Amino acid sequence: MHGLMQNWQLTVDKVLDHAAHNHGDREIVTREVEGNVTRTTYKALHERAKMVSSALKEEGIKLGDRVATLAWNTARHMEAWYGTMGIGAVLHTINPRLHPDQVAWIANHAEDRILLFDTTFLPIVEAAKSQFKTIEKFVILTSRDNMPDNSLGAVSYEDWIKGKSPDVVWGDFDEQTACGLCYTSGTTGNPKGVLYSHRSNVLHTFITMGVDTLGMGAADVVLPVVPMFHANAWGLAFACPATGAKLVMPGADMSGKAIYELLDKEKVTITAAVPTVWLLLLTYLQENNLKLPHLRKVVIGGSAVPERILRAFEEEFEVDVFHAWGMTELSPLGTLGALPAHLVDAPHEQQMEYKLKQGRPPFGVELKIVDDEGNDLPRDGETSGRLVCRGPAISSAYFKGDGGEVLDENGFFDTGDVATLDQHSTMQITDRAKDVIKSGGEWISSIDIENFAVGHPQVANAAAIGIYHPKWDERPLLVVQPAPGEKPSKEDVLKQLEGKIAKWWTPDDVQFVDEIPLGATGKINKLKLREMFADYKLPTA
Amino acid sequence: MHGLMQNWQLTVDKVLDHAAHNHGDREIVTREVEGNVTRTTYKALHERAKMVSSALKEEGIKLGDRVATLAWNTARHMEAWYGTMGIGAVLHTINPRLHPDQVAWIANHAEDRILLFDTTFLPIVEAAKSQFKTIEKFVILTSRDNMPDNSLGAVSYEDWIKGKSPDVVWGDFDEQTACGLCYTSGTTGNPKGVLYSHRSNVLHTFITMGVDTLGMGAADVVLPVVPMFHANAWGLAFACPATGAKLVMPGADMSGKAIYELLDKEKVTITAAVPTVWLLLLTYLQENNLKLPHLRKVVIGGSAVPERILRAFEEEFEVDVFHAWGMTELSPLGTLGALPAHLVDAPHEQQMEYKLKQGRPPFGVELKIVDDEGNDLPRDGETSGRLVCRGPAISSAYFKGDGGEVLDENGFFDTGDVATLDQHSTMQITDRAKDVIKSGGEWISSIDIENFAVGHPQVANAAAIGIYHPKWDERPLLVVQPAPGEKPSKEDVLKQLEGKIAKWWTPDDVQFVDEIPLGATGKINKLKLREMFADYKLPTA
Ligand SMILES: Nc1ncnc2c1ncn2[C@@H]1O[C@H](COP(=O)(O)OP(=O)(O)OP(=O)(O)O)[C@@H](O)[C@H]1O
Ligand SMILES: Nc1ncnc2c1ncn2[C@@H]1O[C@H](COP(=O)(O)OP(=O)(O)OP(=O)(O)O)[C@@H](O)[C@H]1O
Ligand SMILES: [Mg+2]
Ligand SMILES: [Mg+2]
Repeated sequence: MHGLMQNWQLTVDKVLDHAAHNHGDREIVTREVEGNVTRTTYKALHERAKMVSSALKEEGIKLGDRVATLAWNTARHMEAWYGTMGIGAVLHTINPRLHPDQVAWIANHAEDRILLFDTTFLPIVEAAKSQFKTIEKFVILTSRDNMPDNSLGAVSYEDWIKGKSPDVVWGDFDEQTACGLCYTSGTTGNPKGVLYSHRSNVLHTFITMGVDTLGMGAADVVLPVVPMFHANAWGLAFACPATGAKLVMPGADMSGKAIYELLDKEKVTITAAVPTVWLLLLTYLQENNLKLPHLRKVVIGGSAVPERILRAFEEEFEVDVFHAWGMTELSPLGTLGALPAHLVDAPHEQQMEYKLKQGRPPFGVELKIVDDEGNDLPRDGETSGRLVCRGPAISSAYFKGDGGEVLDENGFFDTGDVATLDQHSTMQITDRAKDVIKSGGEWISSIDIENFAVGHPQVANAAAIGIYHPKWDERPLLVVQPAPGEKPSKEDVLKQLEGKIAKWWTPDDVQFVDEIPLGATGKINKLKLREMFADYKLPTA
Repeated sequence: MHGLMQNWQLTVDKVLDHAAHNHGDREIVTREVEGNVTRTTYKALHERAKMVSSALKEEGIKLGDRVATLAWNTARHMEAWYGTMGIGAVLHTINPRLHPDQVAWIANHAEDRILLFDTTFLPIVEAAKSQFKTIEKFVILTSRDNMPDNSLGAVSYEDWIKGKSPDVVWGDFDEQTACGLCYTSGTTGNPKGVLYSHRSNVLHTFITMGVDTLGMGAADVVLPVVPMFHANAWGLAFACPATGAKLVMPGADMSGKAIYELLDKEKVTITAAVPTVWLLLLTYLQENNLKLPHLRKVVIGGSAVPERILRAFEEEFEVDVFHAWGMTELSPLGTLGALPAHLVDAPHEQQMEYKLKQGRPPFGVELKIVDDEGNDLPRDGETSGRLVCRGPAISSAYFKGDGGEVLDENGFFDTGDVATLDQHSTMQITDRAKDVIKSGGEWISSIDIENFAVGHPQVANAAAIGIYHPKWDERPLLVVQPAPGEKPSKEDVLKQLEGKIAKWWTPDDVQFVDEIPLGATGKINKLKLREMFADYKLPTA
């Protein structure tokens, strides 16, 4: 027997419809790629998104066709999103920090038919142009006046949607319909295509809106520094219209100065980004003796939150830090660091210790850790194992199957992360499965070593990798990028780790490099690092 | 093309699984029907709910079978819920405030096979016993020691689940499967059966968790005074385990003293009930000079919030009042009164004016007002019309079809309420369609007149009904129940309305009664009131 409730399909067009009808005059503020700040409303954005739909239909775009963007967070980018998704086409966000060859490879793999991009990215598109196999049309997200010279026959976005009808039917298809395509960062290998459905995006939106998740209300002002090409700006491009929160879009300028200006002038209450962006902001704030009186919550994820960033926000700026762990395959939120009940009145240091961990799963994310044979491991906060998960906004496969099988026989997705879970389901990432250092049959967490190493003031960045050892199989080597102008010694750095990690975890050596290689999302590229040290031999070997 | 995301069915057993795994030691505190206070945890409740499932299976209960409860909010009631729903049987909450004949009628209509009930309701069950046609077994929600004498052959709940296996598979059926059955209050006619699906309950849970909806987090302590037999305690019986909030269950005692004690001792942060309950509490607080330092949010709905209740909470007790409008058919939340952005810094009086309205719809509830021909009416805050709505947790039909067709050709459900909407979608109920007074072709809002009339200190309750008038078709009669020991005059009462309502809305007469008849959920029973005044003639007629 079925319930007798309405058949209301979970499609993302309803999110923007909701915003236009109920929060029509709430603003979307954009720092344009040209530098000036513009303002629109959900009502106006909704109408222009419908015009995008008409323009796409005129190009022959149909249900399931892929439309790509190479774009910053702006109101136009949002219009393009909803205009595409609303008619059941698939919005493919390409990460512009990839090499042009990779951009072309991804666009071809996705079989994108149209590419919309910001003027900033013209050089990438020109460089990749000869390799694109499926793109029929290039649209530059700007007005006619700002159109750059190009060899693509590109049209300006404003010209393209001008005069198009805003009367287009949205939705009206199954909620399982594909909605968005986003490739993983390619940190551990080739990027894999994650194909979101309307249903998964709407359910993730609901998850995002919870108090202990991102938790914004209609009166909030949200600045997603995290780009829309990183797994839907962690869901904010949906959750903000769904709640009626005002959106502040930072465009191309991630400098501390530019972000501070927006946070301050627009009275931003919630913001989200990866740690590296916050380092820039914090440096700017400290150098200029500035405060953040309006900001109440900063969400930090994508890689582990360094302690100095956590403390600066919490202690100097009195902003609540929500550490978040997620993956492209999780839409992306997996855990968040809202304080659990038993820590709300706990001493500050205990709270900070908790907030360095990755947090707890919201309803809609099932987490557990397993050993290599797939057996459940205890939630004791000590045992670490492969982190696997289930939920309505978690991948079941990659686009075209390229990335392999990802579910076990119980439907759990293998995250490729190694973690501990405690009795309250507080999760702590100890490593990537591919980065774990296996010494004498035991695991050493590269992330732990790195986190403590970067606590040294003379260290800008640090990475631990496993190096062959005749007796122990692998032993850790610590690679250090010194802070500008600094020359830390091996002993200095190792001293920093003393007493913080188990003695047998101590790296067998420290090597200094000018720059630790980073991937397209700012994470350490250990593949490349391992290549750099392919011929290296440990002094202990 | 479909997205490639996991097929994770939205079934409510996952809600309690989530609580047990991730918030296992959070408490559920119950004031037992016997008066003592007991404590359990989500983990223990989960295990006992599974034992209920085993007990039900032994009784031969299968997917789709109905299991009924006549019960207060207690941990046992929750166990019975999840134990029933987890195996795909349908939990039917019967309103114990109904007459025994109605209880029997509803149980027969639902074809309930098992009835679980609190000792308090034994007299009702005994009285209805001879009329029950389908109930095979009676279970009393208590221990063997507390079992009352009865002629039902009833078993004690604790005996019934004792030794039963907690190893039962939950879920594993389609999310459209029927999950709960709840009849409407019967204010305007016969109660109608609303059949919730697992999907609708889970989606409503997500809606409930939003900051501007009920918005609880894991650190909150929630006291649902609103009973589980009123549309799932407004969703709290799902939303609290979904977030890990501590639950405080008030059992049978709704007195100001009992509720205050729980609010205070358990440090409740969020609570919800109908206005009449809050009147009792406020009187008790004022008489005993008490404060509510922990409480931060009180949700009030089911009927319009009287101004004195709003002001007492907001001004004397500094608690944020969320006015809520809902219906059994909406699972039940439709609108909530979180302040919109433009009023957050507005003068207090403007905020109070807003909070007397019913609020705005969250994402997942589409609202509009239409005229009698179904044409959309403007959102100008003035025009009133029939309120219709759409959403994934809104009825498409009543159980067995008894209640008629409810959707229009666009899938909108007719609420039977008459309301205005403003440009921000702020909704204000002006009347029930059946209660609207039609004077000279124009509508007079009975609710408005009543709300102002009860503002008079000598008035305990007031109801406006339309009475036949030869010239105007109908004119309003105001029926007043004086406050204990008071004797207000007709002139006094009408003076109270002066300047607050349009002159032509002024009732043509005021009649005094000892008691205004109320229905099973404490709402004014206008059907009965109209019967009482069937022979009455207006002095102006
Ligand atoms: N708060 C965090 N702490 C530690 N690691 C994190 C955190 N948030 C995210 N990560 C890491 O980022 C990964 C997800 O990143 P993303 O989906 O962008 O691609 P990627 O895993 O870096 O790339 P690829 O899958 O292509 O190798 C997680 O699996 C985890 O390893
Ligand atoms: N905040 C509120 N202000 C005014 N009226 C409200 C409010 N909340 C609920 N109501 C009224 O309660 C109704 C829903 O109540 P419920 O589902 O319990 O059954 P009922 O409508 O009273 O009974 P029946 O449908 O059997 O006549 C709404 O349609 C509305 O008329
Ligand atoms: Mg990955
Ligand atoms: Mg009704």
